[in-house]
Amino acid sequence: MNYIDDSLMLHTDLYQINMAETYWYDDVHQRNAVFDLYFRKLPFGNGYGVYAGLERIIEYLHNFRFSESDLTYLQELGYKEDFLDYLRQLRFTGSLKSMHEGEVVFANEPIIRVEAPLAEAQLLETALLNIVNYQTLIATKASRIRQLVRDNPVMEFGTRRAQEMDAAVWGTRAAYIGGFNATSNVRAGKLFGIPVSGTHAHSMVQAYRDEYTAFKKYAERHRECVFLVDTYDTLNSGVPNAIKVAQELEDTIDFKGIRIDSGDLAYLSKEARRMMDEAGFKDAKIYVSNDLDEYTIASLQAQHAKIDVWGIGTKLITAYDQPALGAVYKLVSIEDEHGEMVDTIKLSGNPEKMTTPGKKKVYRIINKGNHHTEGDYLTLEDEDPNQEEEIMLFHPIHTYYKKMVSNFDAVNLHLDIAVDGDLVYECPSLLQVQNYAKSQLQLFWDEYKRTNYPAEYPVDLSIKLWNSKMEHIENVKKQLKQD
Amino acid sequence: MNYIDDSLMLHTDLYQINMAETYWYDDVHQRNAVFDLYFRKLPFGNGYGVYAGLERIIEYLHNFRFSESDLTYLQELGYKEDFLDYLRQLRFTGSLKSMHEGEVVFANEPIIRVEAPLAEAQLLETALLNIVNYQTLIATKASRIRQLVRDNPVMEFGTRRAQEMDAAVWGTRAAYIGGFNATSNVRAGKLFGIPVSGTHAHSMVQAYRDEYTAFKKYAERHRECVFLVDTYDTLNSGVPNAIKVAQELEDTIDFKGIRIDSGDLAYLSKEARRMMDEAGFKDAKIYVSNDLDEYTIASLQAQHAKIDVWGIGTKLITAYDQPALGAVYKLVSIEDEHGEMVDTIKLSGNPEKMTTPGKKKVYRIINKGNHHTEGDYLTLEDEDPNQEEEIMLFHPIHTYYKKMVSNFDAVNLHLDIAVDGDLVYECPSLLQVQNYAKSQLQLFWDEYKRTNYPAEYPVDLSIKLWNSKMEHIENVKKQLKQD
Repeated sequence: MNYIDDSLMLHTDLYQINMAETYWYDDVHQRNAVFDLYFRKLPFGNGYGVYAGLERIIEYLHNFRFSESDLTYLQELGYKEDFLDYLRQLRFTGSLKSMHEGEVVFANEPIIRVEAPLAEAQLLETALLNIVNYQTLIATKASRIRQLVRDNPVMEFGTRRAQEMDAAVWGTRAAYIGGFNATSNVRAGKLFGIPVSGTHAHSMVQAYRDEYTAFKKYAERHRECVFLVDTYDTLNSGVPNAIKVAQELEDTIDFKGIRIDSGDLAYLSKEARRMMDEAGFKDAKIYVSNDLDEYTIASLQAQHAKIDVWGIGTKLITAYDQPALGAVYKLVSIEDEHGEMVDTIKLSGNPEKMTTPGKKKVYRIINKGNHHTEGDYLTLEDEDPNQEEEIMLFHPIHTYYKKMVSNFDAVNLHLDIAVDGDLVYECPSLLQVQNYAKSQLQLFWDEYKRTNYPAEYPVDLSIKLWNSKMEHIENVKKQLKQD
Repeated sequence: MNYIDDSLMLHTDLYQINMAETYWYDDVHQRNAVFDLYFRKLPFGNGYGVYAGLERIIEYLHNFRFSESDLTYLQELGYKEDFLDYLRQLRFTGSLKSMHEGEVVFANEPIIRVEAPLAEAQLLETALLNIVNYQTLIATKASRIRQLVRDNPVMEFGTRRAQEMDAAVWGTRAAYIGGFNATSNVRAGKLFGIPVSGTHAHSMVQAYRDEYTAFKKYAERHRECVFLVDTYDTLNSGVPNAIKVAQELEDTIDFKGIRIDSGDLAYLSKEARRMMDEAGFKDAKIYVSNDLDEYTIASLQAQHAKIDVWGIGTKLITAYDQPALGAVYKLVSIEDEHGEMVDTIKLSGNPEKMTTPGKKKVYRIINKGNHHTEGDYLTLEDEDPNQEEEIMLFHPIHTYYKKMVSNFDAVNLHLDIAVDGDLVYECPSLLQVQNYAKSQLQLFWDEYKRTNYPAEYPVDLSIKLWNSKMEHIENVKKQLKQD
């Protein structure tokens, strides 16, 4: 390596530095700017997302200062000393609001809102997106799997296929937030307190050359035993050897069960179940793994496979069927040369890339009668739906889809994380975050939570916000015609 | 966080620790073991892979020692003091051979071969796979894209969609090895010396509210200018404003071109090209980005889009269409109780999961006449094809596909990285690795390198190795019948 890896400040795109430089020389770097972080489309065709990443963002903000090696490198790239002096003293002095980690989230609502001096807000963008995009993707995938397996234990086993090391540990943390029970990654266990799980691999059977010896040796040192039975032949060798060892050591070990990692898991699990039941091990569990995801789980369930514990690797930790979430970070309001805030919009050749201007709040509208959600409701900063008897929810594109809602609580989903540069938020424990996600999901009707073809949850704009957006579109178009 | 993140030793699966524990208490942990690291199937339907990850593996081996916080955590999990004392003094004392980073690699050939005391070799597995799987995947994807864009510059722009931070920096390093020219990630530039690239975002246009002002302000501070033209309307506003500013500042800036990030890139690039040509900016380049991959590149080329520079984000950095490589790490030989090495095999319900037993070498057979490769040739350790006049290459499954090869050089692809615990290899520079990959690819016929339906490159076993594998299969089957 050319330089020591002592900071994450350069974990950003070069254009952020170039923009900050432009702003600084033009003396507009301190202008107040508001950015929204949101995604435009839910992943996996799911009906909701589960937000993860907040704890790492706070750690990133806590360490938001350029190191000397960062500055030396930037100097090498050609940046001038006066600008580097500005960067040297730079700290995050702005405000950041975020939803609760583990929050149930939807497309087109600001999960994070940054209000900060323009250059600072700009420099945050890439790292924030990098963190939120991946962790939210995995928490959402994990939650889908959790919906399907119901109360079965489900473990994250994907480190070897993860996209490098951070993905392995932060991904399994996100999976835990989404409802997983444990991980095989010991470092993630150490760092985050996630329960760790694992017994032995095929190589141990090979090292001892036969399963009987290998299982016995393992059982000598470990009270809780799950034997991997598919090294040579699951039903003719693996399961019989597991049963034999369990019978011989019945008094000294706790025979938890067997793991099957290849072959026809439906057939093998049913046969193995029968064999273990006949041997009297009705409480022994069948663990399975082998490129599982929500689709193979559903198929195995439909075949009445006898599976008790699910180990999920590659397909979870890489979000295999959609390995990226497309969250973006968009400028929605900026201080002008007179010190006035001006809302901004970005049009695009792709209509879904249009932004919603203005400093906004996100309310979750909860029906006081049935304690379920009616929809999420984006407003301008100065609106408070709790002051109103009744609000109208209407689809922001297909506006004729609408409903009137009364007897509701409007819950502001944004929490203060940083206020004028001070980190004011104390993170809950990871278990609390997992429980939060679980409890929030209970507020939603089942039709939003099914894995296939969920109903579309309303994320609507207040009339005031919608009107403001339409005005901005018209203004830009007028402006373009005049040019 | 519960503990300080001061070591990667626990970046492994729990079962590795449990197996090491079993081996240690059983006093077999020092038995010599040989593991092969290889993948079973090339990703993306590509005809070859490009290996990346070696530099990080060496760094990992260099730091291969448990920290006190690792040991405290393991104690908390219930591991006993005597075993923890063993772990405390553990260092890597074995040998590791690897192919050159940037090597052109194929399925079922050992990219890495570890020969080490059983427990040590086992503890390496997960981290090695985590590193090689991701980095090789991205280097391979990048190489596919490089084949298509030929001599056009191509940049890595994917940090915000990468699967967390390590993926962003190690992924862009892998992309560079695969033939990319630059990255937007400044930290990757700092750490690895990769050229960095980037100018400004839509938010800068929004911050200044109109493109003309934004481009001018940028141009005041930056001699080299690429203007992003799709914030409002590419052809009616963006391109005309870019041309206007370029004309006004012709003497002070180097107008490199424009970037288009949305819309119909084929149509827009052709129109923008025409407009810039008419304005006299024939040398100005057109940069594009927007979820590009090798398929959209091929489509844009087929439409004769006027594109000079490609920015590739999400689809590269996540290997979107196949986000995991399935490399595995398999025990192929183990010392028995008499000190003799015994080769081992693993069968499986899935035939492609069967291993090839024995301590092996990988030779690349190069035709001395045309300086192109004839195939890769796996042998047992004691074989040297250079001692033979003629060898037979035959398909390891469809054995009737065969050819005799003479007048060849057999190049041993394994380099010594660690020998009896000493790290003996000095890493080449990243540029050297990139050049190595490029020069190696020139040894292969074009039919292996095309993006669609490449020919299958021969990776064959020597007769001796093939016979040994068949014998092992028979022996296991006999053994199973006797039980």
